[in-house]
Amino acid sequence: MTDLSERAAELDARDPLAYLRAEFDLDPGVVYLDGNSLGAPPRRVAARVGEVIHQEWGRRLIRSWQETWWTAPERVGEKIAPLVGAGPGQVVVADSTSVNIFKALVAAIRLTPGRDEIVVDAATFPTDGYIAESVAEMTGKVLRPVMPDDLGDVLGDRTAVVLLNQVDFKTGRLYDMAAATERVHEAGARVVWDLCHSAGVLPIELDALGVDLAVGCTYKFLNGGPGAPAFIYVPRRLQESFRQPLSGWGGHRDPFAMTPDYVPDPGVARARAGTPDILSLLALEAALEVWDGVDLAGVRAKGLALTGFFIECVDELAGDTVEVITPRDQRRGHQVSLRHPDARALVPEMTAREVIGDFRDPDVLRFGFAPLYNGYAEALRAARTLADVLATWS
Amino acid sequence: MTDLSERAAELDARDPLAYLRAEFDLDPGVVYLDGNSLGAPPRRVAARVGEVIHQEWGRRLIRSWQETWWTAPERVGEKIAPLVGAGPGQVVVADSTSVNIFKALVAAIRLTPGRDEIVVDAATFPTDGYIAESVAEMTGKVLRPVMPDDLGDVLGDRTAVVLLNQVDFKTGRLYDMAAATERVHEAGARVVWDLCHSAGVLPIELDALGVDLAVGCTYKFLNGGPGAPAFIYVPRRLQESFRQPLSGWGGHRDPFAMTPDYVPDPGVARARAGTPDILSLLALEAALEVWDGVDLAGVRAKGLALTGFFIECVDELAGDTVEVITPRDQRRGHQVSLRHPDARALVPEMTAREVIGDFRDPDVLRFGFAPLYNGYAEALRAARTLADVLATWS
Repeated sequence: MTDLSERAAELDARDPLAYLRAEFDLDPGVVYLDGNSLGAPPRRVAARVGEVIHQEWGRRLIRSWQETWWTAPERVGEKIAPLVGAGPGQVVVADSTSVNIFKALVAAIRLTPGRDEIVVDAATFPTDGYIAESVAEMTGKVLRPVMPDDLGDVLGDRTAVVLLNQVDFKTGRLYDMAAATERVHEAGARVVWDLCHSAGVLPIELDALGVDLAVGCTYKFLNGGPGAPAFIYVPRRLQESFRQPLSGWGGHRDPFAMTPDYVPDPGVARARAGTPDILSLLALEAALEVWDGVDLAGVRAKGLALTGFFIECVDELAGDTVEVITPRDQRRGHQVSLRHPDARALVPEMTAREVIGDFRDPDVLRFGFAPLYNGYAEALRAARTLADVLATWS
Repeated sequence: MTDLSERAAELDARDPLAYLRAEFDLDPGVVYLDGNSLGAPPRRVAARVGEVIHQEWGRRLIRSWQETWWTAPERVGEKIAPLVGAGPGQVVVADSTSVNIFKALVAAIRLTPGRDEIVVDAATFPTDGYIAESVAEMTGKVLRPVMPDDLGDVLGDRTAVVLLNQVDFKTGRLYDMAAATERVHEAGARVVWDLCHSAGVLPIELDALGVDLAVGCTYKFLNGGPGAPAFIYVPRRLQESFRQPLSGWGGHRDPFAMTPDYVPDPGVARARAGTPDILSLLALEAALEVWDGVDLAGVRAKGLALTGFFIECVDELAGDTVEVITPRDQRRGHQVSLRHPDARALVPEMTAREVIGDFRDPDVLRFGFAPLYNGYAEALRAARTLADVLATWS
C-alpha cells in the first residue's frame, strides 16, 4: 500500500500534463472517473457561454449569424481535425452521433452500388446498431452484425459498408484501425469508424489510413458538455460524391439564397443538416481550446500509464474479487472495465465515497481516465475505495 | 406624424403585455424586429445556463443524466405543448427542424401504404422542400410541390402526406390550418404542419384539429436561443404506429439497458434520436418560463394590433415607395413583409440607425413583431426610419 502511495505521488510529481487539471472546474475532493461518458467542464466554458448569450445573442442579435455563427460548425470542426488526424476542410460539427451515423451509412451505401450488406460491430454501442438497422430497412439492405474479431468471415463482394467502433464502450478494448480499414477496402467496401470512445484518447490517423467516413461525439474525452454536438469526417476525395439524406439548408451551397433546389456545399459542410445549435457548439469550441498545444502522444502515454497503474492497484488491492476485462496490453482506450457480480450496487457505494465511475449491464464497472485532469493518486484512491467497499461486504 | 406618435404612446400605455419587456436582455436604444428569425434573449437564460454548467455538469457530473437531463426533452416538450394546443405526452424537443421534418415525413409515409406522392408547399421555407426531396428519393415516392392555394388540385388517392407551413416565411401570410387539415384528411392522406413561424404567435389547436404530425423551431417567437433544438408533435392516437427512421438510443424504451434490439418508447419519446443537447435544451427551458401565465389570445391580439399599426405607419410615411405584401386582414402572422427594389441595401442602412429587420431574396424586407418585447413606439420608429432612409435616397 505504502509502496503504491509513494509510486502514485512520484508519478503525479513527474506528470507533464498535471498543469492541465487547473483548467477544469472539478471539486478537488472528488475522484471523477467517468470522463469516458461525460467529460468534466473546462473552466473557460462558462465564461464563454455567458459572453455568447449577453453579447453575441443579446447585443449583436441576428447579425451574429453572419458574423460568427453560421460557419461555426466548420470552424469547430477544424479544432477537432488535428485530434483525429484529418487535414483541413474535412471535419464538421453537427447533430448527434446517432444522426451522423445515419448520414454516413446512407452516404456510404450510395458509394457502393450493387452491394447489399451493412456489416456492423455486434458489440457496438447500441445506438450504432439501431441506426444501422433503420438504414438497412430504408435502403433495402441486409444487416449483418459481427464480432469485430470475426470481420474476415463476413466481408465479401456483397459488403457495402462496415460500421466499427475504435474502442469498445463496455470493455475498453482498442481495435486496430489500420488493419480493419485495410481489410474492408480489400473487400471493395467502405468503412465508417465510430470514434466516440477514442477521440481525445490517442493519436488517430484518419487521413493516413485512408478511412472513408468517421463520426464521433464530443462530450466524452473532448469535454464539450452534456450532449454537445457530434462531428463527422468526410475526406476530400469523397466529398464530391458524398450524398447524405438529411439535406437540410445547413448543407446547402448557398443557404441564404433560399432557392427551391438543394445544391450541396462543395466541401464538408454538405454533411450539415439544419440550423446549428449555437450555444452548445460555442461551448464546445471553448472546451476544445484546452487542447491547444497539447501533444496527443503525451496524452496517450499518460492514459496508458494511468490505466496501467490503476489495473496494478486493483490487482493488488482487490484482485481476488474483481476481474479486469480490459486488455492489459496496449490494446485499450483510457477506460478500465472490471467485472463483479454486484457491480450495479458497487457504483453508488463508491460514489458515496466520492469516487465516480459507472455501471453497464449486466456486471461491468467502468472507470475512465482522462489524462487532462486525472492523476495517479486518484487511480490509487479509486482502487482502494473499491477494495474498501468490497471488504465491508465480505 | 404627431398623431401617430400620440397613438403609439397611448397604445403602449394601455398594453397589458408591456411588463414582459423587462424579461428580455435587449438594448433599450435598439428596435429589434427580427424575432421571427431569432428571438431576443430572456434574461433568465444566462443565469440558468451558468447554473447548469457549474452545478449540474461541474458538481453533479454524470449523475445529472439520471437526475434531470435524460428526460428533459419530454419535460421541455410539456412546456411547449400548451402553446400549440397539445395535451400532455405528445410533444418532445429534439434535433433541428430539418431533422424532425425528415422523421415526420418518413413516419407519415409508413402510415399511408399504397400511396406514392409527397405534396409540399412550393412557397415553403427551403429546408422543408430539400428534406421532402430527400425523403421522396429514399422512399421511392414522387415529390409534388404546390402553391398552398392550389392544394385542392393535387390531393387525391395517390397523396401519402402533405407538408405545409402555417405561416409563410417570406410574406408572413397565415394559412387556415383547420381547412387544409380537413382537405388532406378527406383525401385520406396525412398532414405534417411546420409551425416555425407560428409557434408563439397565435393559439394553435393541434389536438382539436386532428393534426397528424407537426414540427417547429424554438428560436424564433419562442426565444430559445440561436439554433435551439426543435420540437415534434406526435398525437397519442398515432404514437403506437409512429415509426421514424432516426431510431437512435434516445428513442429507445429502455436506453440504458443497452440491448441490441431497438424497441421504441411507447410514447412521444420515440421521436427522439441521439443524446439530447443539454446546454441548449435547458437554455430553452428557461426561455419558455417567460410564457408562464401569458395568455396566447392576448399575445395574438397584440401581434395583430402591432403589425396593423406598423402597416398603417408604413402606408402613411412610405406608402408611395414600398409595397406591403403581407395580408392586411387577419390572415397574417406577426411579421410584416415589404417589397422594395433596393430591399437588400435598406436593411444595413436601417440597422445603422438601430432598427433591425432582415432581407429575403430578391426584394423583401421583413419586420417581425414579438408581442412579448416589442411595442407600438418601436413600430412607428421603424416605419419612420424606413421613410427617412428612403428620403435620403430620393
